[in-house]
Amino acid sequence: MIKPVDNEKKTTTMKALVFHGPNNLALEERPKPTIMEATDAIVRITTTTICGTDLHILKGDVPSITDGRILGHEGVGIIEEAGTDVSTFCKGDKVLISLISSCGRCSFCRQGMYSHCRAGGWLLGNVIDGTQAQYVRIPFADTGLYLLEPEADEEAAVMLSCILPTGLECGTLNGRVKPGDIVAIVGAGPVGLAALLTAKLYSPAEILMIDLDDNRLAVALSFGATKVVNSSDGKAPEHVMELTKAAGVDVAIEAVGLGATFDICQAIIAPGGRIANAGVHGKPVELHLERLWSSNITLTTRLVDASTTPMLLRMVQSGRLDAKKLVSHRFNLSEIIKAYDTFSNAAKHNALKVVLGS
Amino acid sequence: MIKPVDNEKKTTTMKALVFHGPNNLALEERPKPTIMEATDAIVRITTTTICGTDLHILKGDVPSITDGRILGHEGVGIIEEAGTDVSTFCKGDKVLISLISSCGRCSFCRQGMYSHCRAGGWLLGNVIDGTQAQYVRIPFADTGLYLLEPEADEEAAVMLSCILPTGLECGTLNGRVKPGDIVAIVGAGPVGLAALLTAKLYSPAEILMIDLDDNRLAVALSFGATKVVNSSDGKAPEHVMELTKAAGVDVAIEAVGLGATFDICQAIIAPGGRIANAGVHGKPVELHLERLWSSNITLTTRLVDASTTPMLLRMVQSGRLDAKKLVSHRFNLSEIIKAYDTFSNAAKHNALKVVLGS
Amino acid sequence: MIKPVDNEKKTTTMKALVFHGPNNLALEERPKPTIMEATDAIVRITTTTICGTDLHILKGDVPSITDGRILGHEGVGIIEEAGTDVSTFCKGDKVLISLISSCGRCSFCRQGMYSHCRAGGWLLGNVIDGTQAQYVRIPFADTGLYLLEPEADEEAAVMLSCILPTGLECGTLNGRVKPGDIVAIVGAGPVGLAALLTAKLYSPAEILMIDLDDNRLAVALSFGATKVVNSSDGKAPEHVMELTKAAGVDVAIEAVGLGATFDICQAIIAPGGRIANAGVHGKPVELHLERLWSSNITLTTRLVDASTTPMLLRMVQSGRLDAKKLVSHRFNLSEIIKAYDTFSNAAKHNALKVVLGS
Amino acid sequence: MIKPVDNEKKTTTMKALVFHGPNNLALEERPKPTIMEATDAIVRITTTTICGTDLHILKGDVPSITDGRILGHEGVGIIEEAGTDVSTFCKGDKVLISLISSCGRCSFCRQGMYSHCRAGGWLLGNVIDGTQAQYVRIPFADTGLYLLEPEADEEAAVMLSCILPTGLECGTLNGRVKPGDIVAIVGAGPVGLAALLTAKLYSPAEILMIDLDDNRLAVALSFGATKVVNSSDGKAPEHVMELTKAAGVDVAIEAVGLGATFDICQAIIAPGGRIANAGVHGKPVELHLERLWSSNITLTTRLVDASTTPMLLRMVQSGRLDAKKLVSHRFNLSEIIKAYDTFSNAAKHNALKVVLGS
Repeated sequence: MIKPVDNEKKTTTMKALVFHGPNNLALEERPKPTIMEATDAIVRITTTTICGTDLHILKGDVPSITDGRILGHEGVGIIEEAGTDVSTFCKGDKVLISLISSCGRCSFCRQGMYSHCRAGGWLLGNVIDGTQAQYVRIPFADTGLYLLEPEADEEAAVMLSCILPTGLECGTLNGRVKPGDIVAIVGAGPVGLAALLTAKLYSPAEILMIDLDDNRLAVALSFGATKVVNSSDGKAPEHVMELTKAAGVDVAIEAVGLGATFDICQAIIAPGGRIANAGVHGKPVELHLERLWSSNITLTTRLVDASTTPMLLRMVQSGRLDAKKLVSHRFNLSEIIKAYDTFSNAAKHNALKVVLGS
Repeated sequence: MIKPVDNEKKTTTMKALVFHGPNNLALEERPKPTIMEATDAIVRITTTTICGTDLHILKGDVPSITDGRILGHEGVGIIEEAGTDVSTFCKGDKVLISLISSCGRCSFCRQGMYSHCRAGGWLLGNVIDGTQAQYVRIPFADTGLYLLEPEADEEAAVMLSCILPTGLECGTLNGRVKPGDIVAIVGAGPVGLAALLTAKLYSPAEILMIDLDDNRLAVALSFGATKVVNSSDGKAPEHVMELTKAAGVDVAIEAVGLGATFDICQAIIAPGGRIANAGVHGKPVELHLERLWSSNITLTTRLVDASTTPMLLRMVQSGRLDAKKLVSHRFNLSEIIKAYDTFSNAAKHNALKVVLGS
Repeated sequence: MIKPVDNEKKTTTMKALVFHGPNNLALEERPKPTIMEATDAIVRITTTTICGTDLHILKGDVPSITDGRILGHEGVGIIEEAGTDVSTFCKGDKVLISLISSCGRCSFCRQGMYSHCRAGGWLLGNVIDGTQAQYVRIPFADTGLYLLEPEADEEAAVMLSCILPTGLECGTLNGRVKPGDIVAIVGAGPVGLAALLTAKLYSPAEILMIDLDDNRLAVALSFGATKVVNSSDGKAPEHVMELTKAAGVDVAIEAVGLGATFDICQAIIAPGGRIANAGVHGKPVELHLERLWSSNITLTTRLVDASTTPMLLRMVQSGRLDAKKLVSHRFNLSEIIKAYDTFSNAAKHNALKVVLGS
Repeated sequence: MIKPVDNEKKTTTMKALVFHGPNNLALEERPKPTIMEATDAIVRITTTTICGTDLHILKGDVPSITDGRILGHEGVGIIEEAGTDVSTFCKGDKVLISLISSCGRCSFCRQGMYSHCRAGGWLLGNVIDGTQAQYVRIPFADTGLYLLEPEADEEAAVMLSCILPTGLECGTLNGRVKPGDIVAIVGAGPVGLAALLTAKLYSPAEILMIDLDDNRLAVALSFGATKVVNSSDGKAPEHVMELTKAAGVDVAIEAVGLGATFDICQAIIAPGGRIANAGVHGKPVELHLERLWSSNITLTTRLVDASTTPMLLRMVQSGRLDAKKLVSHRFNLSEIIKAYDTFSNAAKHNALKVVLGS
């Protein structure tokens, strides 16, 4: 076969979304990344998306991110080059990128707590350049990538980079959702909806969704919530207690990251219940130990480890999890500034996850 | 057999410690209790003790306790009379009294969460008369009492009414202490020492004890703490981080019930660690979710279920748990006001648990 | 309201199915049961059903069952009379009968292992008279009965007396089925189908059903099995290994009770997998420890504790579990001999569960 | 500092114990190993030991081991050379060698089931050359070695290569030993004694040791067994039932690998109990499902994953586990044939673990 002239090789720059301080993003030409460690791979991004955390970054809330950083920690793409110590992937493989890099060797990795890997953790779009670009360098490629079939649906797959593992691990699993439970999810944004989709895998009897926005609550109902509560009247706890005949809920998942939403969780949790915090908090909250000390509750926090990605991938592949329904808008990478605008004003645009093609 | 004249039957009153509002206790003559339900038993108290919670009551901190209540929820005694539906015990049996009454039938009991039994829970010395008396009525006697050998050591046994199950369940078990762990216990009073004694059953590598009082810390060392930290300089977190080479602790057990001691737990907990609250809190605390949201920690609260009492009893009986070492002072029931004084001023008297004989 | 003449009170006998030795059943007039203990209730049976275990009894395989015993351990009915110590139910309440009686007080009950209750366990239709009659005496009524709404579907409810808890506890829960798993169920009779229905609550990626009968396999597919294997060629293991790309299965549920079906489970289990035995075995089996010693597998056995009945009831009530689909045939109690014939020849009649109305 | 002439470098051969078929071992000169993969390390062995599995190999029972293989999978030594991708260790580090090699990347490693690593598992002295030599090549050095202090006790440390993790993981952990349990260990050889030492970390109330040899039973008592049973009269089950007042045991650990010893476990297990198989079996066993199907028992098998080595190391380092007491005899590597003879005739020599210095 006569190979066509490979223009790509000659190109040494790429398009990338660069952070230049609060509220200052630019789509720029940047040098293409190259292999730095034998365990690295270079991936050509074909699909990426924007995370709620990217909006926090944009506001300047995440101090680890400095001027010049390429953002993004979610993506699907094609292996462009694999380091000499990458044993699982070859050039041309279609792969899913995990937001979490893990060395597989440190004590945290050996316990499955990849988010706290001593050499990894959340690196992409944080302390190294990320996926909102044409190419990205992936450290520890063997454990940070997952092989996809060539025909895999990329929009479904990219939901497994971050949002679905987050909903599952920080919400559903930490909340120990089980058949017959009554579950409340506070916040019907992407994290809350991901918690909802994954909670359903454990067959709770009821899933109550709580949010300020009726559109989001309507989406939650279409995703399988059994009841919804609009909390804009400030009386969410009263409504939940009424819906549960004063029993409260077995599991409360906090998917917003504010004191007010955390308070709802505290107010509705039944004795023996679990509060699973999935929100990113910027301030301390008040914990009502004067009441909860005797309630036999469990409260958890978690930075997603993405240890459930292989399971989620099997569920998507077997048709048992419709990950794609989280996608509401589609753009090209060249339109990423517009995509950020849409995602930043989610209520106005009825936006859930906003996907960017190559 | 000619029965001797039973003087006891003629006596219809008994001595009992009665609460008459904040800082107002009196040893009084009160009517002897009688069987009210077929599942009740009347126990003649031979050994009782005072709990830290009794001191809270004395200060007026526990609103469920009203004027005229006989205090006390710990005790060992002899079955005086058993209701017609009591199947496990007969008159004359020596028994250990559990602080928790449980019907064995409700949904909480069926989950082992006896503290929240719909018909029981913590009743004795709270919403019904308690054990700091010559006799007590025990509801649900079959599940609220444990048979002791006639020759059983009563001082060891009475430590299983409340203090050791509390340290074990609220501290050690909720903290999921396991071999190799580094455990910190904040507060070296009876609850903290009970947590220490029971944590040792799970073989942590280190147990750090934190308190303001050097005498208590010396006791903790003699009980098996591997290191102690006097927190009176306000730098307990710094000391713990130094002792753990900046790793922090796997388990932090809060055994005081104050914001300041809860703060120490938050400051020293390692990623993936567990904070087990065993203290009784009167006020909300500040929870540092702005830092802990990503730390993969678990925080638990619990009113003791006393579900571990049978296991603790086996451990005491097999000689593997020296419960009696928690006892520092001994009085007769007639001296109970003095006993309260000693226990209230524990630091002055180097008091741990104060036991009352009949 | 003028009460009609209550003929029932005058009647002191009832119809009941009585066991008179192997293959000898008779529908007879027997005295109506009466309260014997304060914790008993008398239930008028409105719906009952036949269990595979009843067929074992009929063959003479269960030595604890003696001549004259009324069979049956499943049922729904109306409280006719409640003992003085029954606190949860009143005359006229519609109730579900659990096959397991539990005192709620013994050490096994306190661990949730009601099947081994020292005063209870499987009593009904075994060592005391059972539910295939117009009336039955239920010991420990508070824990052996569950309140139903007056309008509850009795055919759905009676599936919770035994068959669904058995499939769930002995199969699904002991097999620790979880999202993404590959599960094989050997035997598509009522127990296997109950395992299938309850396994789905935990969202495995695949459920393979293995049986000799194509009709049963067709039913399994309609119940949600993802693949089926007819094992009549003696090559079930080969087929399963092919379907799993030589990986084997994460969970193998034995739902027959024979050496041959147990062998299939041993042959297909993946390293780290769980074999959950739900079948009633009459003979020892060969365990291939020469191969399995290094496979990190777990093998479990269990007499159903029926501890999951409350959860299953919530799932049926919330519409998330279609218990009624297990019912294939309906008869009146007067036709019970015919019903046994149908159930005994299940393959011929395409019978699943056979229900008897009053 | 003037470096002495390094004779070692000039030497390209080493002494090694080589397997040449059943009952045919020879101490030979072999080429020193060299780095083959970037993740390898070469370790100079300073202490090694012999495993019961080596005796199985010697008899020809382990078909994966072929003529010419250097035996041994336990050892402590000094890093001689580290591959370019080894990040944790440097030349000169003292290290503990784990019997299990693990890539840290495959699906089994990501679940902590290192024994079934797709690229690793039990390789040393099995499918690659082992540690009973002056040097050994260690694959995946970062995860297969543990750093020791220069002054660490090598005899204690080498007990963590295989025997203590085996007793802990296959016996104690799989048996879910917990405070208050009654534990029986069948077989008082090194595996059984390792199970005993590690079971004590979880504070069972009783540990019954069962063996044919009174000397071994005496050792077991000195290690902390609470009762011993000599099974040479064929009545071990009767003795155990008598010692447990007919209750049976909560945990039975099989540490021999024969049908007869497995039978003892089946006969003594209490309802709800766990049988943990730690023995290497050469033949199928009979499993009494006709009795056990209703006993709610759990039976486990496991090839040691050595995932607990870091915890055991902390326990040894903190002085809470006296690993060294397993060592009964000491030899030099040049005497290894004699050491095998001693270990093969353990009863005659009262041998436990036999350690080989360099």
